[in-house]
Amino acid sequence: MNFSSRLLENAVNEFSKLPGIGQKTALRLVLHLLNQPVSEVETFSSVIAKLRNEIQFCTVCRNISDQPVCEICSAKSRDRSIVCVVEDTQDVMAIENTNQYNGLYHVLNGLISPMDGISPSDLNIQTLTERVAAGELKEVILALSATMEGDTTIFYVYKKLKDYPVHVSTIARGIAFGGELDYVDEITLGRSIVTRVPYENFLIR
Amino acid sequence: MNFSSRLLENAVNEFSKLPGIGQKTALRLVLHLLNQPVSEVETFSSVIAKLRNEIQFCTVCRNISDQPVCEICSAKSRDRSIVCVVEDTQDVMAIENTNQYNGLYHVLNGLISPMDGISPSDLNIQTLTERVAAGELKEVILALSATMEGDTTIFYVYKKLKDYPVHVSTIARGIAFGGELDYVDEITLGRSIVTRVPYENFLIR
Repeated sequence: MNFSSRLLENAVNEFSKLPGIGQKTALRLVLHLLNQPVSEVETFSSVIAKLRNEIQFCTVCRNISDQPVCEICSAKSRDRSIVCVVEDTQDVMAIENTNQYNGLYHVLNGLISPMDGISPSDLNIQTLTERVAAGELKEVILALSATMEGDTTIFYVYKKLKDYPVHVSTIARGIAFGGELDYVDEITLGRSIVTRVPYENFLIR
Repeated sequence: MNFSSRLLENAVNEFSKLPGIGQKTALRLVLHLLNQPVSEVETFSSVIAKLRNEIQFCTVCRNISDQPVCEICSAKSRDRSIVCVVEDTQDVMAIENTNQYNGLYHVLNGLISPMDGISPSDLNIQTLTERVAAGELKEVILALSATMEGDTTIFYVYKKLKDYPVHVSTIARGIAFGGELDYVDEITLGRSIVTRVPYENFLIR
């Protein structure tokens, strides 16, 4: 692109480093900011700098937090005997939004992926083992993506935990609610026949 | 959304104020920034603040610029007798990218749109009239969008300029290069028959 201003060019380049944002979108965003009042843009800029400088990770569950121990880990109302292991903060938010879970979390901060050079030591697996070793947990739910990386991570974490007196489970896989049978892929359909559940369990909502 | 951190929530809210960015995309962008080195994020944040605080608009053509008079307006190699009137900076960049134009520009900073409350006095039309009144221009090309707002603006600007000894033209409208006739809409096709050009003009590339 042919920029009339170096300042404009720099700002567009910075925006287009973000995932999913190309040069044209970046230019549109930058021109939008240029049309905003100075105070708005200063807030935008300072909120981002503040986020990166002041953000903490909960020392217990490794989730993003404003305090050393996050709100979920310090909440008295939650079931402290059960931990849900997830890939990242977005998954914590997704599960919290279901209102179906009242235990604690553990954020791995990624999945094992040799292709992307992510090995078990890059993830918060050691800290999970320590939490289990402390002996207060009854159940660990592995709520990871149904992908190759997710399955690899489930297998690795299971092996690490299997000698401790803790129940390890994974979230159910099957056809999604509202899913029509003729559109479901074969692997999902096949697995959901193999892992069929008694009708009494089906009634639980 | 259920945020585990106020800092995170603020940053996501700021990002989702940008056009075309919803909460989910904003969260993805913010989490991406969180994974970047502090120095990278500080650059991102400072470049944006700097842009908004230090940007100038060329006193001649009103395009975004780093100096009081932009590079195009101060270039000795350009034809100073012809001015191309455009809606915004993006249009200047688009025309510059064609390498077909060597004159000057005038950026209106919008189009007349009563629906959006944009009247002629909100645009840089007065400054255009002054440039024409100065008497050095031979031609004004109105390169505006082929929309209702574009046509309204063309009509208004034409009326303002018609008493000056300057040739006013608009960019050609017709079927796009590579456009197949059976896919062209009726208005475009009808107009391109009415405004047909001699074959000798057709040969100009």
